[in-house]
Amino acid sequence: MNGSVPVLLTDLYQLTMAQAYFGSGMHEPATFELFTRRLPRTRRVLIACGLQQVVEYLEQLAFTRAEIEFLAGLRLFTPEFLDHLARLRFTGSVRAVPEGTPFFADEPVLSVTAPILEAQLVESRVLNLLHFQTLIASKALRSVLAARGRYLVDFGMRRAHGAEAALFAARAAYLAGFDATATVEAGRQFGIPLSGTMAHSFVEAHDSEVEAFASFLRWHPGPGTLLIDTYDTARGAERVAALMRAGAVSAAGGFVQSVRIDSGDLAAESRKVRAILDERGCAQVRIVASGNLDEYRIARLLDDGAPLDAFGVGTSLDTSADAPALDVAYKLEEYAGRPRRKRSPGKLTWPGRKQVWRRRGADGKLAGDTLALADETAAGEPLLREVMRDGRRCGELPSLPAARDYCRARVAELPPALQLLEEGAAAYPVRVSERLKGLVAALDAAGD
Amino acid sequence: MNGSVPVLLTDLYQLTMAQAYFGSGMHEPATFELFTRRLPRTRRVLIACGLQQVVEYLEQLAFTRAEIEFLAGLRLFTPEFLDHLARLRFTGSVRAVPEGTPFFADEPVLSVTAPILEAQLVESRVLNLLHFQTLIASKALRSVLAARGRYLVDFGMRRAHGAEAALFAARAAYLAGFDATATVEAGRQFGIPLSGTMAHSFVEAHDSEVEAFASFLRWHPGPGTLLIDTYDTARGAERVAALMRAGAVSAAGGFVQSVRIDSGDLAAESRKVRAILDERGCAQVRIVASGNLDEYRIARLLDDGAPLDAFGVGTSLDTSADAPALDVAYKLEEYAGRPRRKRSPGKLTWPGRKQVWRRRGADGKLAGDTLALADETAAGEPLLREVMRDGRRCGELPSLPAARDYCRARVAELPPALQLLEEGAAAYPVRVSERLKGLVAALDAAGD
Repeated sequence: MNGSVPVLLTDLYQLTMAQAYFGSGMHEPATFELFTRRLPRTRRVLIACGLQQVVEYLEQLAFTRAEIEFLAGLRLFTPEFLDHLARLRFTGSVRAVPEGTPFFADEPVLSVTAPILEAQLVESRVLNLLHFQTLIASKALRSVLAARGRYLVDFGMRRAHGAEAALFAARAAYLAGFDATATVEAGRQFGIPLSGTMAHSFVEAHDSEVEAFASFLRWHPGPGTLLIDTYDTARGAERVAALMRAGAVSAAGGFVQSVRIDSGDLAAESRKVRAILDERGCAQVRIVASGNLDEYRIARLLDDGAPLDAFGVGTSLDTSADAPALDVAYKLEEYAGRPRRKRSPGKLTWPGRKQVWRRRGADGKLAGDTLALADETAAGEPLLREVMRDGRRCGELPSLPAARDYCRARVAELPPALQLLEEGAAAYPVRVSERLKGLVAALDAAGD
Repeated sequence: MNGSVPVLLTDLYQLTMAQAYFGSGMHEPATFELFTRRLPRTRRVLIACGLQQVVEYLEQLAFTRAEIEFLAGLRLFTPEFLDHLARLRFTGSVRAVPEGTPFFADEPVLSVTAPILEAQLVESRVLNLLHFQTLIASKALRSVLAARGRYLVDFGMRRAHGAEAALFAARAAYLAGFDATATVEAGRQFGIPLSGTMAHSFVEAHDSEVEAFASFLRWHPGPGTLLIDTYDTARGAERVAALMRAGAVSAAGGFVQSVRIDSGDLAAESRKVRAILDERGCAQVRIVASGNLDEYRIARLLDDGAPLDAFGVGTSLDTSADAPALDVAYKLEEYAGRPRRKRSPGKLTWPGRKQVWRRRGADGKLAGDTLALADETAAGEPLLREVMRDGRRCGELPSLPAARDYCRARVAELPPALQLLEEGAAAYPVRVSERLKGLVAALDAAGD
């Protein structure tokens, strides 16, 4: 998927600015940093995600002849510049926090240093890639926290915003702790475990619900999930139990692992279904809930004691429905060795190449971060690590399962207040180093 | 882009259900219809969009050998079924409303009739394609209505949900009346006019704002837009005016068509800038606003009399931020000639193959719709038209500019209450035909 995305997936101004940099001979290195200005009201922490795709994008960056010809047709660019683009590769270096790292406002999670033309040109897609997966990983974490160990499946493909959103949402959700996805291609591309059930249409297409259940098991080897709410949920559960009494395993090896409820009062229905199954000797059959679920509904269902073993989460996850975008920016912090600072109202930035240092307390929980210049040292552990040098990755990036484990370990270190779902910013301390404050004062005094 | 999206971009259950249909010899035709159950609180009308991509998807549907091998590795499917998939093509027929058609709750905008295996298999991607572009076209229309003829540019790529979302958002926004996009690849793929300005980083990378402006014009033939809020907006405007007095057109043919303001109180700043430009003989220079704009802010700025000529709309557009998903569904309405109906609580559907008839009043405005069975006739004009038969399109679909014109004409027919931005459902009458009501009563009486 990513390999097929054209380099022209960018904003026009990246190219017209590149033309001016090229024409004016501005080839000095620039550092751009990616950070978020503030967290959405409904997020207490964000999870960095998408670095794998950013590195692949930067390594593969190249213009095809057809793309150069399209640009020539716009009559905005000189032949010399187009020749330069035709040979262009990304030659810069990248520092980044590992995928799965929790982070907060103002903290850079990616720092790109390259000749300004290159570092600027990649802005739009780098933002597009890191923004979306970070958005979804941060949203997914909330369901993971709410579900308290229950099995979580991404069901969101159909209402994700296009193909890439569906695939990357599956990846980001898995990294943040989901157990599986229903999206087959995400299983193929990223090795994520696949999980599926059946649709109401399958039940409706058969002459009866019982026939639909039997037919599904006949042709589905291994554990299956039967959808029991097409007509009447309690009756659906009774039919499953009767089917199991008649023969627990089909000739193909299919058996009922679970039933799914997709509508109605899920707490009440699941209790009813649990009782029906237990009374009829089907205590091992699990109950899966779905239908407009999000972290709040999952938490409420479990608070209510609903006997649910698994949740399918779709639209709210894949669109991050309560906060469909993050206020991320990719800003010039240094050019030709000099720090730079934007001073537009409400959009002040911290200048210079930076590092984030993270301290842990005696209990192993995070105790606070320090935002510092890259050549400073502060207490704790530096979060940004070099991942690319001279346009090549510095080593293998962690596999997706390794990044998932890393995320789980980092989330376990979050103070309890940061693991809550409720609105309200938790007071996680992010300090700014004295040298960085001094640099800001000096730049502001100098004017533009 | 679309051509590269694999057929495995689907939910696993589509394939396991297909295995059961195949195994059980269920090859009768099924009709599925796509509709929305209810409109978001902040939408009074929706605009159908994305049919072009649905038709391309259905025409190109095919499994590669590698995809079949991946499926074989899942150990869920019989060799006979995998052979069937390897040869599978979409052979069905499709009726749909033209792109750009306004529609309301319960009205089908797409109706697919095909052997059930095919009609079911395509559900996930058909929904994914039609949902997203309809979502964005419906959101974009609101900015179009708010802007009252001002020039509108899609700036949303960087925070769109992935590559395809960025491209399809540009297309859907253009169809709904936007004038241009900043996304280069959307210009290349869909022929949408491109528009671009400059970034703050470009200004900051130069030793002074004046130098940045001069360098940009030196290398930018034709009309350019200078960003004037990096340090101080009024001073930026004065510098633009001074630059124009020194020589209005660069050697490359670059000249200042407009200035952009991206921060601060846009109404106050634009009035200040307008006055500065007018006093200095630059009355022809236009003012572009951007920065977290949406339809509400555009309407308020124009209500305040802000002298703005163009708007760049980004994140709120490409993510449909106030309603990031629609409650669309693709439901089985008929199988083997028999109507089907889902009766899950809160998810009742209207059974049978249907048609929507639309009446206009004497004033040319829409007067009401009738939801009827496909073989009925009602007053007005039928909205669903045949677009595919036997797996092939029935004729060329309208070009994107033609669809855009069609949308504008249809929007002009909306009663004034449907053109408002405010929340609150307008009372647009959608009647259900007596025969359709009778069918529901008969199915409910029959039970499952």
